[in-house]
Amino acid sequence: MTRILVLHGPNLNMLGQREPEIYGRQTLAEIDQALAERAESLGVGLESFQSNHEGELIDRIQAAASEADGLIINPGGLTHSSVSLRDAVLSVGLPAIEVHLSNIHARERFRRHSITAGACLGVITGLGWRGYLLALEALVDQLAEQA
Amino acid sequence: MTRILVLHGPNLNMLGQREPEIYGRQTLAEIDQALAERAESLGVGLESFQSNHEGELIDRIQAAASEADGLIINPGGLTHSSVSLRDAVLSVGLPAIEVHLSNIHARERFRRHSITAGACLGVITGLGWRGYLLALEALVDQLAEQA
Amino acid sequence: MTRILVLHGPNLNMLGQREPEIYGRQTLAEIDQALAERAESLGVGLESFQSNHEGELIDRIQAAASEADGLIINPGGLTHSSVSLRDAVLSVGLPAIEVHLSNIHARERFRRHSITAGACLGVITGLGWRGYLLALEALVDQLAEQA
Amino acid sequence: MTRILVLHGPNLNMLGQREPEIYGRQTLAEIDQALAERAESLGVGLESFQSNHEGELIDRIQAAASEADGLIINPGGLTHSSVSLRDAVLSVGLPAIEVHLSNIHARERFRRHSITAGACLGVITGLGWRGYLLALEALVDQLAEQA
Amino acid sequence: MTRILVLHGPNLNMLGQREPEIYGRQTLAEIDQALAERAESLGVGLESFQSNHEGELIDRIQAAASEADGLIINPGGLTHSSVSLRDAVLSVGLPAIEVHLSNIHARERFRRHSITAGACLGVITGLGWRGYLLALEALVDQLAEQA
Amino acid sequence: MTRILVLHGPNLNMLGQREPEIYGRQTLAEIDQALAERAESLGVGLESFQSNHEGELIDRIQAAASEADGLIINPGGLTHSSVSLRDAVLSVGLPAIEVHLSNIHARERFRRHSITAGACLGVITGLGWRGYLLALEALVDQLAEQA
Amino acid sequence: MTRILVLHGPNLNMLGQREPEIYGRQTLAEIDQALAERAESLGVGLESFQSNHEGELIDRIQAAASEADGLIINPGGLTHSSVSLRDAVLSVGLPAIEVHLSNIHARERFRRHSITAGACLGVITGLGWRGYLLALEALVDQLAEQA
Amino acid sequence: MTRILVLHGPNLNMLGQREPEIYGRQTLAEIDQALAERAESLGVGLESFQSNHEGELIDRIQAAASEADGLIINPGGLTHSSVSLRDAVLSVGLPAIEVHLSNIHARERFRRHSITAGACLGVITGLGWRGYLLALEALVDQLAEQA
Amino acid sequence: MTRILVLHGPNLNMLGQREPEIYGRQTLAEIDQALAERAESLGVGLESFQSNHEGELIDRIQAAASEADGLIINPGGLTHSSVSLRDAVLSVGLPAIEVHLSNIHARERFRRHSITAGACLGVITGLGWRGYLLALEALVDQLAEQA
Amino acid sequence: MTRILVLHGPNLNMLGQREPEIYGRQTLAEIDQALAERAESLGVGLESFQSNHEGELIDRIQAAASEADGLIINPGGLTHSSVSLRDAVLSVGLPAIEVHLSNIHARERFRRHSITAGACLGVITGLGWRGYLLALEALVDQLAEQA
Amino acid sequence: MTRILVLHGPNLNMLGQREPEIYGRQTLAEIDQALAERAESLGVGLESFQSNHEGELIDRIQAAASEADGLIINPGGLTHSSVSLRDAVLSVGLPAIEVHLSNIHARERFRRHSITAGACLGVITGLGWRGYLLALEALVDQLAEQA
Amino acid sequence: MTRILVLHGPNLNMLGQREPEIYGRQTLAEIDQALAERAESLGVGLESFQSNHEGELIDRIQAAASEADGLIINPGGLTHSSVSLRDAVLSVGLPAIEVHLSNIHARERFRRHSITAGACLGVITGLGWRGYLLALEALVDQLAEQA
Repeated sequence: MTRILVLHGPNLNMLGQREPEIYGRQTLAEIDQALAERAESLGVGLESFQSNHEGELIDRIQAAASEADGLIINPGGLTHSSVSLRDAVLSVGLPAIEVHLSNIHARERFRRHSITAGACLGVITGLGWRGYLLALEALVDQLAEQA
Repeated sequence: MTRILVLHGPNLNMLGQREPEIYGRQTLAEIDQALAERAESLGVGLESFQSNHEGELIDRIQAAASEADGLIINPGGLTHSSVSLRDAVLSVGLPAIEVHLSNIHARERFRRHSITAGACLGVITGLGWRGYLLALEALVDQLAEQA
Repeated sequence: MTRILVLHGPNLNMLGQREPEIYGRQTLAEIDQALAERAESLGVGLESFQSNHEGELIDRIQAAASEADGLIINPGGLTHSSVSLRDAVLSVGLPAIEVHLSNIHARERFRRHSITAGACLGVITGLGWRGYLLALEALVDQLAEQA
Repeated sequence: MTRILVLHGPNLNMLGQREPEIYGRQTLAEIDQALAERAESLGVGLESFQSNHEGELIDRIQAAASEADGLIINPGGLTHSSVSLRDAVLSVGLPAIEVHLSNIHARERFRRHSITAGACLGVITGLGWRGYLLALEALVDQLAEQA
Repeated sequence: MTRILVLHGPNLNMLGQREPEIYGRQTLAEIDQALAERAESLGVGLESFQSNHEGELIDRIQAAASEADGLIINPGGLTHSSVSLRDAVLSVGLPAIEVHLSNIHARERFRRHSITAGACLGVITGLGWRGYLLALEALVDQLAEQA
Repeated sequence: MTRILVLHGPNLNMLGQREPEIYGRQTLAEIDQALAERAESLGVGLESFQSNHEGELIDRIQAAASEADGLIINPGGLTHSSVSLRDAVLSVGLPAIEVHLSNIHARERFRRHSITAGACLGVITGLGWRGYLLALEALVDQLAEQA
Repeated sequence: MTRILVLHGPNLNMLGQREPEIYGRQTLAEIDQALAERAESLGVGLESFQSNHEGELIDRIQAAASEADGLIINPGGLTHSSVSLRDAVLSVGLPAIEVHLSNIHARERFRRHSITAGACLGVITGLGWRGYLLALEALVDQLAEQA
Repeated sequence: MTRILVLHGPNLNMLGQREPEIYGRQTLAEIDQALAERAESLGVGLESFQSNHEGELIDRIQAAASEADGLIINPGGLTHSSVSLRDAVLSVGLPAIEVHLSNIHARERFRRHSITAGACLGVITGLGWRGYLLALEALVDQLAEQA
Repeated sequence: MTRILVLHGPNLNMLGQREPEIYGRQTLAEIDQALAERAESLGVGLESFQSNHEGELIDRIQAAASEADGLIINPGGLTHSSVSLRDAVLSVGLPAIEVHLSNIHARERFRRHSITAGACLGVITGLGWRGYLLALEALVDQLAEQA
Repeated sequence: MTRILVLHGPNLNMLGQREPEIYGRQTLAEIDQALAERAESLGVGLESFQSNHEGELIDRIQAAASEADGLIINPGGLTHSSVSLRDAVLSVGLPAIEVHLSNIHARERFRRHSITAGACLGVITGLGWRGYLLALEALVDQLAEQA
Repeated sequence: MTRILVLHGPNLNMLGQREPEIYGRQTLAEIDQALAERAESLGVGLESFQSNHEGELIDRIQAAASEADGLIINPGGLTHSSVSLRDAVLSVGLPAIEVHLSNIHARERFRRHSITAGACLGVITGLGWRGYLLALEALVDQLAEQA
Repeated sequence: MTRILVLHGPNLNMLGQREPEIYGRQTLAEIDQALAERAESLGVGLESFQSNHEGELIDRIQAAASEADGLIINPGGLTHSSVSLRDAVLSVGLPAIEVHLSNIHARERFRRHSITAGACLGVITGLGWRGYLLALEALVDQLAEQA
C-alpha cells in the first residue's frame, strides 16, 4: 500500500490559536484528521508528524526513505533558510509536495522565497487547510502514474 | 450556478508540443476537457479561454466581473512582469487561483517571482495538468464556504 | 487648433468600481467628460482613448504623430515595465505628460518606478481625477508657449 | 480663509541663474509672485518660505500646524534623503503636494527616488514653474472638497 | 525551399522618423525590401511581419512552426521584459537570430539585458539595417548545414 | 503574580569564556542570578532557560503561552535567520523584548539585521548584562500598564 | 557630579500630537520631566536639548565634550542618514546610548538601519518613553563602573 | 595525546545513497573508518560525531572545549546560514578546519557562501572523502607546530 | 586599401579542442584562413593576431591606430572585466565590432555582461565562426560608406 | 585678485582632538593658518569658513557666487548624502576641489562614495592637511590658466 | 610518470616578505622545495612556475595540455576576476586544485569570491604552505584512481 | 637620495591623442618631463615607467622594493578590477599615491570604484596632469617627515 508521510514544521502545532486571520481556525489535529480520512478514502496509508526541531524533521525524512513513498511538507519558518531540509528531501529521493497555508507571495518580503521548494515536485500555497488535501490527491495520483 | 472562468496565458496553446519534458505531454484541449468533466461532476459551470495577448486576457477578466464567480489563471510568461494582469484581477474582486504546470521555484531566476500571485488567493505550481483540477476543487470549495 | 490625445492604459475602464479607496469613485466616463469640458473652455480639441492592450496604445500614439499636438498618458500597470510604450512616445516626438490617480511613491515597491516617465515632460501623481485636468492645462500652456 | 504655505528647499533661491537649461529661467521671486496672484484669484491666503536649512524648513512646517491648511513643498536636494522632512509633514497632518521643476524620473539615478513623497498627497514633477500653480489649484480644490 | 520569417516588434514601423541618430534613416519598408532582395539572391523565401502587439508577434511565431524554417526577430522594447516572447520562440523550436539596430550594450541600463536572447542562437546588435542582412546570411548558412 | 520567561539562545551558556572583549565577563549563571534578584525586588516571578537548540526554544515559547505573561529573549545567532523563532513569538501573542549583549549595529554586516525583532515590542542592544535588567523593568512596567 | 546630556532630534518636539499610535501620547516636556526626576533620584545632573537642525545637534554634542560625561540621543529622522552626527559623537569620545520610541526593526525598510548607532555603546528601541529612563540608568551605571 | 573531534552536519549520515554523483559513493562509516586509521598512524586520538540537529552540533562543540584540541567540521546545509554554529566554534577557541565533499564554488548560488568558514583556519572543498584526511593532516601539523 | 585588424583574446588559440560543444570544432587557423579568403574577395587587407596577454592585445590595438582602418575583436574572457581593453579601443578611435562564438546571453551570469562592447559599433554573438565573417562584411561596408 | 573660499564641513572644527590616528594632529586653526600663508605666497585672497550646519555651508557657497573665484571644500560627513551641497556647488558654477584628510577609499563602506564629488573638478583624499595646500595650488593654477 | 604543474600567480614570488602575518614566513622557494620533495616521495614529476602576468600563466596552462597530467594553481589576485584563467583551465581539460594560503572566506569582501574555482575539482584555503602539499597528495590520489 | 617611481598603466601612452576632452592634451612625455623637472627642483630622484601589461607593472613595483622610496601610480583601466596590483603595492610596503587625470567620481558607474586605492596613502583625481605634480610634492613631504 502506498504510504504518505506528512511533515509539519515549527509552530504548526499552534494552528487555530496562531494568527488565525492568516493561518485559519483549524487546529493541526483537525487537519491531520481530514488528511487521515481522505487517505483512507483514497486507499493509502498516511502518517503525520510535527516538530519544532529542524533536526527531528530531517531525521524523520531520512527514516521515510524506507517507510514511505512520498512526502507532503510544510516547513513553516524553515522554508526560507533551511538548506539542510532541502538536502534531506533530495537525499531520500522521494517525491514531495510543499504546502503553505497562507499565500507566501502576498506576505513580507522574507517569506516570499522558498529554499526548500526546489527539492519538491511543486508547491501549493495560500489555499488554507485544503491545500494539504489537494497535495495528498496530487501525490497519490503521481505515485499511481509512476507505478 | 457557480461559474468558473479558466484563463490560459501566452503559449499555453502550444502544450503537448512545447518543451514536453518541462510542461508535460497533455494538449490544452485535453486539459480543458478534463476541467470540463470535473466541473460537471462538481455541478459548476466552467469556461476556458486562451490568448497570447495580455490585453485580451485583461478584457476577459473584466467581463468576468458579471459573468463568473471565480478565476483560475495561468498567466504563462506574463506571470513575471504584468502589473496590468495583477490589477485586472484586483479590479474585479473575484477570488482567483494561479496555476503553473512546472515548478517555478526550480527554474531560471527570472521565473521564480510571480507579480500576479499577490492578487490571488494562492498558487499551485509544479503539479502539471493536475494542478488545474486541484485549483478547481479548491475554488469551488472556497466559493461554497463563502455562500 | 491644438489637439490633445488622452490615453488611458489597462484597467482604467474599471474606475469607479476598482479599489475606489485607492483610485477614487469617478468613472472613466466622468473623467473624460470633465476633460472634454475643460478642453472646450481652453479652446483645444481633445480625444480620449482607453485600451487594455499595450499594442493598441502604441498604435494610437503612433497615429497621433499626425493627428495630435500633445499627449496625456496614464499607462496603468504598463508604467512599470513597458519599454515599448516609452519608445512609442519617443518615436512620435510629441510633448507628453504622465498622470497617475494614486501616489505611486506611497504604494508597493514595484509601483514606485516609472519606465515611461523618462520619455515625458513630467508626471502628476496622487492628485486623483484632478491630475488629468492639471495635465491638460500644463500641456496647453506648454504648447502655446512653444508656438 | 484657506491658508497655504509654500516651502522652497535648498538652492531654490538660485533659480534663474542655476543651471537654467534644467530648472528654467524664472527667478524664485517671479514664481512666488505668480503664486501670490493665483492665490488671490482663488481667494486663498498664501505665504512662501525658502531656506537652505533643513531645520528651518522643519520648524516652519511645524509652525504651519496652527497657521496653515495645506502645504506645497519643493524639498530640493533634501527630497532624496530627508526622513526628518518626511516626518515633519507627517507630524502636522496637513495635506501636502510635492513639486519639482525638472522631471526627476529623467535625471541621475540618485534623483529618481523621493523619500518625502510618501508623506504627501501627490507629486507634480517636470512641469517647471507651472507645476507650483497646478499644485496650488489642486490643493485648494482638495481642501474645498474636504470642507 | 527554405522559408525565413522576419519579425519586427513595437515601434519598428516608425523607423526613419524615430530618433534617426540612434536607429538610422532607413524606413522599415526599405529594410524589408533589402531583405527580400537578399533572400531572393540566396534562393530562400522570406516574409516580414511587424506588430506593436506582443500577442500578434507570439501568434505569428506559433504559426511559423509549420510555415517557416527559421526566425529573425527584433523584439524592440519587448526585448527587455517579455518572457512570453522568449517562450514562444522556445515552443516552436525553430532556430532564431535576434537583431538590434542600435548597440544595446552602449545605451541606458534597462536596455542592456535581453530576456529573449537566451532563446535564440545568437544576437547581432549595433550594426544598423545591415544587421538584418547578416542575420539572414547566418541563418540560411546554419539551416543549409543542418540539412 | 506576573511571570516572566527569559530565553537565552545558542552559545549564551558560554558567556564569561566566550570572546569576553565582545560579550563581557559575566557568566550566564551570574546574569540569571541578577535577573532573579531584580525580579524578586519587583515582585514578579521569573524563569530562565538556555538552549543551543532552536526547536527547544520554540517548544519553550509555546509552553509559555499558558505559563508566562511576557518574554525576554536573546536569540543569539538565531537572531539573523530564524523565521521560526519569530513565528513562535507571534503565535503565543505575548509581549517580548529582545536583548543583545553586544551592539549588533557595530559588528559584522550579517549581524546587523534581526529577523526576530519585528515580532517584539522592542530591542535593547549593546548594554551588556544590564540590558537584561532594563528589559525586565520595561516589561514589568508595560504589563502593569496593560493590567 | 556626573552630567548627562539628552539630545532629541527633529520632530521630537511634536510628541504627543505626532502619530501617537506610533510614538505614544507623552509630550516631550513630560518625557524630559520624567528624565529630570529620575536623574535627581540617581544623583546626576541632566540637561535636555531638542532641535530640528542637524547642525545645532552637532554643535551641542561638541560643546558637551567639556560639559557632560555621557549622552543619550534620539536622532529622529537623522538616524538613517547622518554620518555627521555619527562623527560628532565619535569626535567627543563620550559614551552614548541611542534611543528610539518606536521599534525601528518593525517599520518601513528605510527606518531599519541606523547610521548613528555604530558610534554608540548601544541602542534601546521600541520601548516608548521608558526607553529614555532605561538609557539613563544604563549610562549612569556604566559611568559609575568606569570611575 | 592530541585529540581531534570530527563533526558531520545534517544529511551526512546519508552519504553513499545521497546524490552519489555529487557526494561520492563512500558511506559515512567508511569515511570515519579511514579517518580513524589515519589518526592512529599519526598518533592522535579522533572521535567522530554526526547529527542532523544544529543544537546537538553546538552542544558537542562546546563540550569539545575541554575534550579536544582541534575540530574538523562539515556543517552540511548549515554552512550557508548558521551564525550559531560559527559562534560555537568561536566560543571554544579551538582551531577548526571546514570540509565539503563537493566543490561549493561550482554549485547553486546559495551554496557558494559559507557563514561558518570565517570562524575556521581554512576550508577544503571539492576533494571528496579525501578532503577529511587532508584536513586531519593539516590540523595535526598545525597543532604540533603550536606546541 | 582598407586594412582590418582581427584580434583574438585569451584561449582562442585553443579553438577546436576547447569545449567544442560550446565553441565549435573549427581551429583558429581555419577561422583566420576563412577570414583571409573573404577579405581577399572583398578587396581589403586583413591581419589576425591572437594573444593570451591583455597587454599585448592593447599594444596591438594602439599600433593599429596608424596601421588599420577598423577592428574585429573577440576579447575572450577579458570581455567581462577589462576596462583597459575598452579604453584601448576608445583611444585609437577606430570602428570596431565585437564577436563571440557562443551566445553569451545564454551562458553563466558572469558571461552575460560585456564591458568592452560599449566601445564598439556593435556585437555579433552566438553565430560561431560565421560571426567573424559577418563582422568583416559589416565593417567593410561601414568603412566604405564613411569614405 | 583671485579669491578662494575654503569650506570645512561638520566636525572639522574638532580636528586635533578628533580621532587623531585617522584625521591627524593638526587643529583646524593650524590648517587655516597654513592655507593663509600659502595663499599669500601665491598672491591670492583666501577665506576659510567652518560650519556644522549644511544650510550655512550652502548659504556661504551661494554668497561666493559674487565673492570668490573658486572653492575648496571638505564636506565632512555630508560628503556621502548631501545632494543639496552638490546642487549648491553646481548652482554657483565655480570651479571646486573636494578634499578629505583620510583616504575614504580605505574606510567603512558608507564613506567610500562621495555624492558631492561629481560637482567638483576633482578630489584629493588621504593626504592629510597637505591635501588642502595641494588643492589650493591646483585651483590657483587652474584659474590662472582659464584667465 | 604522472606529471604535476604548480602555478603561482601574481605576487606569490614576494612570499616571506609580503604581509607575513597573512601569508606566512615561508618563501616561494621553500614552498617549491617542499613540493619537490613530496613529489619525489610520491613518485611523481613536478614543475613549479610563477608569474605576475596573467597571459604567461595562461600560456603555461595551455602548454600543460601535452606536458602535465594535473594542475595545482594559486591564482593570487587573479582569483577574483580572471575569466580568462578559468577558461584556460577548462580548455586543457586537466584536473586542477586551487590553493590559497590565507582563508579567503575571512578577508575583505572582494576576496571572498573565486571566479576560477568553478573550473577546478576543489579548493584548499587558509592552511598556509601546507595547503600546497595537501593539494599535491589529493591530486596524485585522484589521478591514480582515474588510471 | 629619495627615489620616486612613477607608474603609468594601460593606455596612458596614448595621452594627447586619446579622448583629449576627458584626459587633456598633454602627452605622457610632457607629463614625465614636468615630473622630472619638479623632482630635480625638489632634490629627489624620479623614474617613470609605462606599460599596458598588468604583469610588467607588478614586476616593476616589486623591483621598486629595493630601488625606490615611494610610488606614484595611475593604474588606468586596471584601477577598477586589479586585486593583483593592489597586492603588489601592499607587498612592497612603500607609500603610494594614486593619480587619475579625470574625475572618476563624475564618470561611468564602473569607473567610480578603485580597488587599488585601498593600498595607497591617498588619491588625487580630476586635476589633470597637475595631479601628478601634486602627488610628487605630497609624497616627498611625507617621506621627509618620516625620515
